[in-house]
Amino acid sequence: MKYLAENSIYRLIIYHRYLRSLKKDSWIISSKLAKVLGVESSQIRKDLALVRIKGLTGKGYPVEQSLRKLEHYLGLTRKWNIILCGAGNLGKALFHYKGFNALGFRIAAIIDKDPRKIGLRWNKISISPPEQLEALVKKQSIEIAVITVPQEEARGVKEKLEEAGIRSILNFAPYYLSLKNGIVRNVELTTELTFLSTHLNLHGRKK
Amino acid sequence: MKYLAENSIYRLIIYHRYLRSLKKDSWIISSKLAKVLGVESSQIRKDLALVRIKGLTGKGYPVEQSLRKLEHYLGLTRKWNIILCGAGNLGKALFHYKGFNALGFRIAAIIDKDPRKIGLRWNKISISPPEQLEALVKKQSIEIAVITVPQEEARGVKEKLEEAGIRSILNFAPYYLSLKNGIVRNVELTTELTFLSTHLNLHGRKK
Repeated sequence: MKYLAENSIYRLIIYHRYLRSLKKDSWIISSKLAKVLGVESSQIRKDLALVRIKGLTGKGYPVEQSLRKLEHYLGLTRKWNIILCGAGNLGKALFHYKGFNALGFRIAAIIDKDPRKIGLRWNKISISPPEQLEALVKKQSIEIAVITVPQEEARGVKEKLEEAGIRSILNFAPYYLSLKNGIVRNVELTTELTFLSTHLNLHGRKK
Repeated sequence: MKYLAENSIYRLIIYHRYLRSLKKDSWIISSKLAKVLGVESSQIRKDLALVRIKGLTGKGYPVEQSLRKLEHYLGLTRKWNIILCGAGNLGKALFHYKGFNALGFRIAAIIDKDPRKIGLRWNKISISPPEQLEALVKKQSIEIAVITVPQEEARGVKEKLEEAGIRSILNFAPYYLSLKNGIVRNVELTTELTFLSTHLNLHGRKK
């Protein structure tokens, strides 16, 4: 199947999340989806057609079959092992974040360069030094990395991950990363706050 | 000034971030910005014109003046006080996150319902019980809230914030929030990971 634009993928993720909350053997019409999710009906039909989900006139979309096709497209039919780079507060928060496991995401390795952290265990996963990154990626069949190291270490960690063959990174360090052969999702916390300040600045200020 | 579409605001934030890294008394041409930021020159000129930033033929845009106009639009000419709701790992990580202060964002109050946490201090900010939320918002002139409570508490906290007059929320709880009179930025960690699994699934898998 072809790779869609980011906005289309984002909407497919939203449809998937919503359909999961419905009864599997039910049907849903696009106008209902439109109302709940705030997306135009015509857009929904177009998006779903792109991943070959077809509705029936008068009945709508079959929930279970649609879910299966969405999961197939979104890569949610299998488990994904993750390496967490950075065992600080943010790393710990993500490690314990509910909701990853339900979708098949599992933190299978943790690295940190702090000697006081190396050897500690979070649940059953022990914290390893950066030198073991490549070996861990191979041994655990890891394909996704989450970066939560400080700004100044982000680039070095990314390079190590690249060398180890990682092509998918979720980056929380306040440093913009990209991969030549792969994808980085940069979660920019200051950007998120700036959206809020813009809104308040323009018309949201309290009386 | 008028409120622009989310994508336009996002690009303005990117321009602002990049211009901050340049010398204040320099000039920059749109084709250079385009090359560095991966946005079309024509788009950049259009975006900047929307916030009344004008270039000079042959010289480009004056960095300092452009920065000032961007900061004016993005609400970055003043300080913003924030209330952090949830003093868990994620809350602690955000509290210590570098980069907020530099843009004028300051966590001025923390609430948590756990009696073992109430009264503790992070730097000089003490952790207060939820009952004090409204009083803290008033006393500290707080206009932005960051939610890092567990999923099942997110909605209740949002309602308390709404009652206290908060109109801007950055939400990390895995529960979609919205405000009738305001804006919520929902940071969805599973959505971010699903972008990665989609990419890997379609064409990024390791050989």
